[in-house]
Amino acid sequence: MSVTGLPFDDFRALLRELPGPDAQALVAARERDAQLTKPAGALGRLEEIAFWLAAWSGRSPAVNRPLVAVFAGNHGVTKHGVTPFPPSVTQQMVENFAAGGAAINQICLTHDLGLKIFDLALDYPTGDITCEAALSERDCAATMAFGMEAVAGGTDLLCIGEMGIGNTTIAAAINYALYGGSAAEWVGPGTGSEGEVLQRKIAAVETAVRFHKDHLDDPLEILRRLGGREIAAMAGAILAARVQKIPVIIDGYVATSAAAILKAANPAALDHCLIGHVSAEPGHLKSIERLGKTPLLALGMRLGEGTGAALAAGIVKAAAACHSGMATFASAGVSGRTD
Amino acid sequence: MSVTGLPFDDFRALLRELPGPDAQALVAARERDAQLTKPAGALGRLEEIAFWLAAWSGRSPAVNRPLVAVFAGNHGVTKHGVTPFPPSVTQQMVENFAAGGAAINQICLTHDLGLKIFDLALDYPTGDITCEAALSERDCAATMAFGMEAVAGGTDLLCIGEMGIGNTTIAAAINYALYGGSAAEWVGPGTGSEGEVLQRKIAAVETAVRFHKDHLDDPLEILRRLGGREIAAMAGAILAARVQKIPVIIDGYVATSAAAILKAANPAALDHCLIGHVSAEPGHLKSIERLGKTPLLALGMRLGEGTGAALAAGIVKAAAACHSGMATFASAGVSGRTD
Repeated sequence: MSVTGLPFDDFRALLRELPGPDAQALVAARERDAQLTKPAGALGRLEEIAFWLAAWSGRSPAVNRPLVAVFAGNHGVTKHGVTPFPPSVTQQMVENFAAGGAAINQICLTHDLGLKIFDLALDYPTGDITCEAALSERDCAATMAFGMEAVAGGTDLLCIGEMGIGNTTIAAAINYALYGGSAAEWVGPGTGSEGEVLQRKIAAVETAVRFHKDHLDDPLEILRRLGGREIAAMAGAILAARVQKIPVIIDGYVATSAAAILKAANPAALDHCLIGHVSAEPGHLKSIERLGKTPLLALGMRLGEGTGAALAAGIVKAAAACHSGMATFASAGVSGRTD
Repeated sequence: MSVTGLPFDDFRALLRELPGPDAQALVAARERDAQLTKPAGALGRLEEIAFWLAAWSGRSPAVNRPLVAVFAGNHGVTKHGVTPFPPSVTQQMVENFAAGGAAINQICLTHDLGLKIFDLALDYPTGDITCEAALSERDCAATMAFGMEAVAGGTDLLCIGEMGIGNTTIAAAINYALYGGSAAEWVGPGTGSEGEVLQRKIAAVETAVRFHKDHLDDPLEILRRLGGREIAAMAGAILAARVQKIPVIIDGYVATSAAAILKAANPAALDHCLIGHVSAEPGHLKSIERLGKTPLLALGMRLGEGTGAALAAGIVKAAAACHSGMATFASAGVSGRTD
């Protein structure tokens, strides 16, 4: 990290100079695909996924060390009664992850995915976004840098997820700040906000965006003012993956809001990312469409924890296996078309 | 099998007396689900799948011995030039399955699924449905009985797929006979029929259904007159799974046409079945809707081989793992809602 200048300067520079796709690996993948023992295009989206893996990893499609990274944070906005669960649940769920008792643990076991949990200063919730910035620029940049470390251990497919009581309120505020419309259209039930709780959630998002309204032209300012630690860390992890040629699967509504910050800063910033699953959270499909993406799965989940991304990783693993493991028409002695 | 009466008599009796869901296992699964460390309903369709596994297996949701059964057959209708691939490809692909070179092999490896291939008298294509019955009643019943044996080795999740040059023509004829409309709306490109080939495919389906029109009130007559060996075997396998309390995932357009025969004979006959994936074949979504089902995946594939069902099995395995492996709020010490 830079020791001079403002803390965001390095990220601004990084976002201006993102590496592009690997054209040679992409051409090689398309050439191999045309020889595999199936009618052209018959594996549909699995073929597109294989090409995407090639383009953004820079080599033949393969998934040998998939990793789910889950970032956990706490949020000052919970003091406004925006969720039916107490903030202490964030820490309790981190312990549940560590003990192997959460949904994400079972999905990682099923699909043979590594799992790392990053808890981010859970005893120090971010500022209350309705009347102050969530984070200082220094704290936000440091948390992004921390998130970049998530990929340091080595992986060839990174699934990005989160846990944080109150963070669908945060995601709604980010989307409202980025895309406009009304607060109500970006706020959903999250873990189960209904009735008065849901009304307080909408009011908090409305108040927060109004409070910060003169500072929302800059995506990184939106991140530090309206975001949270897990959001900043996810943004950092997605950026680091790009630089290190690691394709990324993004999870639900909250993870998508972190990705949206990067897309707003550079329209090409998410070209190495898939959206794993469209959540039941009402604003998610709309936010995915703003990113120009089509989610891989639609299973009506709304849990976070990286669960949607991890399920999608099972599909991505199969796509890589088909591409690398199938026989060619020539090697298998299978006849081609007669026309 | 009965040694007296007509060959179909046993199947007619079986279809009248199908076992229902296990209410006790279903209640137990719902009770456990309510205790798991997640907001109520937050796993969406994964929870529905767990309940479905409980109801139709009669025990706590588990997938320990998943099996993909692929049935292969050849079809006299190919003499009308309805497909760009020669019928010899059916045998060649069976050999490719045996050698581990096909897409279904890679998906089974990825998701740790057993795979069995059943080739059905490939040297003796069925009769040309445009001017004769595909099968005699005796042959059709024997092939259904053969299909029932597919589950004999023991499995707790059966994925049903097929391979057979010409069999999307067969599936279109079955759907047209069952549901009416026009031949053209049930015929699609299959492995890649275009232009004149596609027109010949539509004409063959039109001619076949017209030729047999006085015998299409009985679903089993539709099966033997317009079907094929792999279709009859898949119908038998789905039936046998019901009796043996094995939940079933049905693959693409052709496998769905086999299932549709059973549904026409008894509206409850597919209650133990999921549709794994909606194919790119234009008639598939419409045929799925006729069965009252919602496909689990939509990945634009159109390959058959059980590939869509096998990918869906990865989701079903994860659903069972979440249900059985997650901690409860009490055991994990996670707080519930405060309201």
